[in-house]
Amino acid sequence: MFLRRLLLLLCLLVAAHRSVADDGYRLWLKYDLISDPGLRKDYQKAAGFIVGAGNSPILKTAAEELQQGLQGLLGQTVPIHSAAKKGKGGIILVVEATANVSGGALGKDGYRIAEQGGNLVVTGSTESGVLYGAFALLRQLQTRQPLRGISLSSSPRIQYRLLNHWDNPNGTVERGYAGSSIWKWYELPERIDPRYQDYARANASIGINGVVINNVNASARYLTPEYLEKVVALASVMRPYGIRVYLSVLWAAPKVIGGLASSDPLDPKVKQWWTAKTDEIYKAIPDFGGFLVKANSEGEPGPQDYGRDHADGANMLADALGAHDGLVMWRAFVYKANSNGDRFKEAYQEFKPLDGRFKPKTLVQVKNGPIDFQAREPFHPLFGAMPRTPLVLEVQLTQEYLGFATHWVYLAPMFKETLDADTYANGPGSTVAKVVDGSVDQHAISGIAGVANIGADRNWTGHPMGQANWYAFGRLAWDYTLSSQTIAEEWARQTLTADAPAVRTIADVMVRSHGIYTRYTMPLGLHHIMGQTIHYGPEPWLASSARPDWTAVYYHKADAVGLGFDRTEKGSNALALYKPEVQRRWNDPSTCPPNYLLWFHHVPWTQPLSTGRTLWNELCTRYYTGADSVTWMQQQWATVKPQVDAELHADVAARLQTQRKEALWWRDACVLYFQSFAKQPIPAPFSPPERTLDEIKRLVTIYQLR
Amino acid sequence: MFLRRLLLLLCLLVAAHRSVADDGYRLWLKYDLISDPGLRKDYQKAAGFIVGAGNSPILKTAAEELQQGLQGLLGQTVPIHSAAKKGKGGIILVVEATANVSGGALGKDGYRIAEQGGNLVVTGSTESGVLYGAFALLRQLQTRQPLRGISLSSSPRIQYRLLNHWDNPNGTVERGYAGSSIWKWYELPERIDPRYQDYARANASIGINGVVINNVNASARYLTPEYLEKVVALASVMRPYGIRVYLSVLWAAPKVIGGLASSDPLDPKVKQWWTAKTDEIYKAIPDFGGFLVKANSEGEPGPQDYGRDHADGANMLADALGAHDGLVMWRAFVYKANSNGDRFKEAYQEFKPLDGRFKPKTLVQVKNGPIDFQAREPFHPLFGAMPRTPLVLEVQLTQEYLGFATHWVYLAPMFKETLDADTYANGPGSTVAKVVDGSVDQHAISGIAGVANIGADRNWTGHPMGQANWYAFGRLAWDYTLSSQTIAEEWARQTLTADAPAVRTIADVMVRSHGIYTRYTMPLGLHHIMGQTIHYGPEPWLASSARPDWTAVYYHKADAVGLGFDRTEKGSNALALYKPEVQRRWNDPSTCPPNYLLWFHHVPWTQPLSTGRTLWNELCTRYYTGADSVTWMQQQWATVKPQVDAELHADVAARLQTQRKEALWWRDACVLYFQSFAKQPIPAPFSPPERTLDEIKRLVTIYQLR
Repeated sequence: MFLRRLLLLLCLLVAAHRSVADDGYRLWLKYDLISDPGLRKDYQKAAGFIVGAGNSPILKTAAEELQQGLQGLLGQTVPIHSAAKKGKGGIILVVEATANVSGGALGKDGYRIAEQGGNLVVTGSTESGVLYGAFALLRQLQTRQPLRGISLSSSPRIQYRLLNHWDNPNGTVERGYAGSSIWKWYELPERIDPRYQDYARANASIGINGVVINNVNASARYLTPEYLEKVVALASVMRPYGIRVYLSVLWAAPKVIGGLASSDPLDPKVKQWWTAKTDEIYKAIPDFGGFLVKANSEGEPGPQDYGRDHADGANMLADALGAHDGLVMWRAFVYKANSNGDRFKEAYQEFKPLDGRFKPKTLVQVKNGPIDFQAREPFHPLFGAMPRTPLVLEVQLTQEYLGFATHWVYLAPMFKETLDADTYANGPGSTVAKVVDGSVDQHAISGIAGVANIGADRNWTGHPMGQANWYAFGRLAWDYTLSSQTIAEEWARQTLTADAPAVRTIADVMVRSHGIYTRYTMPLGLHHIMGQTIHYGPEPWLASSARPDWTAVYYHKADAVGLGFDRTEKGSNALALYKPEVQRRWNDPSTCPPNYLLWFHHVPWTQPLSTGRTLWNELCTRYYTGADSVTWMQQQWATVKPQVDAELHADVAARLQTQRKEALWWRDACVLYFQSFAKQPIPAPFSPPERTLDEIKRLVTIYQLR
Repeated sequence: MFLRRLLLLLCLLVAAHRSVADDGYRLWLKYDLISDPGLRKDYQKAAGFIVGAGNSPILKTAAEELQQGLQGLLGQTVPIHSAAKKGKGGIILVVEATANVSGGALGKDGYRIAEQGGNLVVTGSTESGVLYGAFALLRQLQTRQPLRGISLSSSPRIQYRLLNHWDNPNGTVERGYAGSSIWKWYELPERIDPRYQDYARANASIGINGVVINNVNASARYLTPEYLEKVVALASVMRPYGIRVYLSVLWAAPKVIGGLASSDPLDPKVKQWWTAKTDEIYKAIPDFGGFLVKANSEGEPGPQDYGRDHADGANMLADALGAHDGLVMWRAFVYKANSNGDRFKEAYQEFKPLDGRFKPKTLVQVKNGPIDFQAREPFHPLFGAMPRTPLVLEVQLTQEYLGFATHWVYLAPMFKETLDADTYANGPGSTVAKVVDGSVDQHAISGIAGVANIGADRNWTGHPMGQANWYAFGRLAWDYTLSSQTIAEEWARQTLTADAPAVRTIADVMVRSHGIYTRYTMPLGLHHIMGQTIHYGPEPWLASSARPDWTAVYYHKADAVGLGFDRTEKGSNALALYKPEVQRRWNDPSTCPPNYLLWFHHVPWTQPLSTGRTLWNELCTRYYTGADSVTWMQQQWATVKPQVDAELHADVAARLQTQRKEALWWRDACVLYFQSFAKQPIPAPFSPPERTLDEIKRLVTIYQLR
């Protein structure tokens, strides 16, 4: 007994020792020993053994992940029995394809956790369902929920939940702010970095079931036998976690590595090449997920090079997939060079007419908004406009336009804003989420993609709080009805502190952080006014670039009269792309939500807004209060210092200092620049910036030097 | 007593737990508990307390590093007393500028460790000397040397021992194979990554006292007030470790950030700008080290843009330094574009005439060989040719041409080959080392620079064995008379295993590894036949590039007659750049060491060599035995499996598999390609490659795709 207590003490000390230097590597799967002895005892009683349901790799993973988690949380080794074992007080893993829950059948990959015959029974409708259930059970313990009388079930609302890595073969990550790529191409396939498994574990724990491992600006390398061997090695790490590997493909691959003269999708040789290549891939990776394609976009090759359209291209790949269980995800992020029109409309104009042309197993992948992952965008007009085509929602977890790795911005509210937006495609309630999950148009397949914020930095995401965006993406992909607040608390509880008031404080900051960021960078619907090469700094004065739609003035259209892009019928009429109900809400500047105002209207500086202030005064108010809110974030963070690991607290505190500095940079840049058009003073009670616009321009220039 | 034992057990357990998952982060400073109780007791008796010599930051570091190291090694907290303490059995730190050792005065920054009055007294001639002595004392414990009767002393032979980081402001590292840059420019100055201190500690432990933090292809950002603040933050972490920060500067900075019309070194405005900038830097960083310059090289701007020469440029910067204690290191790595001559001679031809023109505090930094960090190069002809100019030896730790992070190549033998080479500049014994340390020409300043192999990968260097190259560089910079074998054993003992036979086995592999690498890649003096964009793969057939001297055929000159670059007087006469004694040795193909043969001679395929084989047969023999030696390395590594951490062992074993694969790649590429000229069969007992040259060319192409 004494010895046992002693060992426990030892475990506690080791745990304490570890938490002293929390480097963030363990993410939300920390599994530190539960310090409340009563609670620990309760859990120990309920988790005396694990009975696996079989020997398949995924079920084995489920049992082992449970064992590993319980080892940490309970400080004891919970034995795994492969065959059914009589007894009580254990965890039983069961696959039951026809499992029911109170609402009917358990959905595909869903799970149910219930007390039954004195045991905790984790039932999955598939093997992956069991794995998700195992992680859900661990989450119950991590968040200190009672197990007695437990009865919960959950099924994913979206079928394909993918991370997209914009990782290059040379180890860099396009728009990555967390170090180099986690994929070590020069080491593969011989060396399997142990980190790959930790990555897979983290993904499985939040329900992610697919990863596109390479940049959409794709290298053809991955389709060569030499690189496929490397992909095979990665796939073998992902497979036991229920994760399928996908590849971004270079459209010109048949020319670049196939030795063909063309990549014309209607050329029989090209079709034959892709078919053979696809067969080769599936021979090596039987559960290969499929292809992601960026074509005829930002200089990438595509079917239009041969007078074909996107559907021709996507369908050819769908044909190549043939009987294989795979998908084609074709990106709608296209906009012609040298456009004199409105970039807002271009993807719609190119893709809407193709609706109905896409073959089964082909999905069109659409960014959340019409431009490019701006701090806030109205939902993309393609959602609801292509009823005969399943659409994948693509959101960006990496903070390309949201402060890189120095700004604390929790993205769940932004994702939710898109997901909850009503397209009215099929009457009220036709939210983007319901378009995406297939329920509006009765599609059999559904998908969502998050552009990963993951790199080789020890803590995976650069900013420690960036982990929450990875986590929230997975949770929302699984169930978009979860609230931002719930997810924030769940994440903070598992990742940062067991202290309930501290969790609430942190979650509160998280939930407000996106609104704060937009206020000090692009309030009232301003967009695309960031630095040309550093997307986290301001450059609203940017007037010339390789393309007009890469400048800032193209978007904000500031002049002596006012500010904003007129997209009503007097302007570009992009509003007409939406259903009438949406148009009605946004068409009138006096009813248009202030957050979208300058997306759709050129508003006079002196125009009073619904807030009671003129545009100019409201703009200044948002920039100033936004920047000041970072100080509030700092204050809130300071209050949780005793409850959070010291090194991690210092890390976030330092980044908040930078964020405050950069918020002032944005504020001063924008109010001074727009003031040169508005010709009005900074309204009271705010003090004018202490620096000049030229000084800020010089600062921006520094960050854009070679 | 029981409790004490228990705590010890606990420490052992924690230590054991840590060693199970050795991720390489701790480098050679592991400080794991000494498991031999007798030895531990001896050490404990000798290290009962530490008496610091004062409160200066560097001395504080020395005491704290000792305390931290002893905490780990001995499992006990050794108290630090700031004032003198009577008693025995402690460690006393003393600064004594006039300290003597048996051979005379202790050199600058040297240390002496001796038993004295029952204490261990660590005397440094400077504060840094004390710090180096503290690390030397820890090294004694780490390598389990007896402390009783200890009496050792050491002083650095070269004064400025620098790492050069080729790190870019965007976080990439030019020629880096260990992840992204460790410097987080977007986070600085607010956030100080704890890793910076670990980096400084590692450097100080091996005597490195300066770091150039940015790429020689320099951004002007670092000279702006915005970035200087960041540099200040880094300097403040380095300072307590006796490390000074240096900057690579962009020659065009006065234009790019200074708003001047010119960067002409003789323009008074330019001089004024640099003087003011230098003053600004020293005001912020009083111990700033100075400037490193790559000018008029590979497209970089320089004084020649204004009709001035390198001395004009360097001297202007030296003037700008004025009374500040700093240096200008001006790189001699220059070669004109579109040259029809011999790149071998170009740096010599440009810099030799400038000897005597450089002002004090200006050093010319010369790569070890005349081309560019090839797997093996003869020493650079500038060594010994510029008696009036102190020369910095620049070597490359990052394995740009030595297998990136998948080949195990221990570089000490290569560094030693250069250091020990006799230039005969001032009669026999005028080795490169003695030119560099200033003794041949009586220079007051001396320097050595290693291009860092450090990145943000958890284990710092990508290949775990790359750590040994960082270590060996520091040790040789301190004392180039140390043998490669000694350093290898010392490093392996501290880093990999306490088992003496295993250490010997590992050191044996290390010492042979460079010879093996050159055999399977560029034997007999072949050079610059690597892939155009992937410098670790073969591309001897490369015949066209942006510049002729970026191809392979420019260097190997294979034809129907033979192979190699004739640099005798019948050829480019580059040999004439060396002293007659050197020329004599290398001028005759029959006496020229085989390792340098094709550097200087175009040798007929059928020519018998000193080895008894014809050139063709010797070439094939080296490629085949070289590649087979990787199998030997694998076998040797397999034998130490029980003595090395499992994860680390697996890591190296996997990389060796890749190395074997790539050695065969090199072998097959080169023998097949050269066979097309030699028109001879692969000699017995070797089997011809099973693949064709075209197949290998396709493979090389894959690795050079976008």
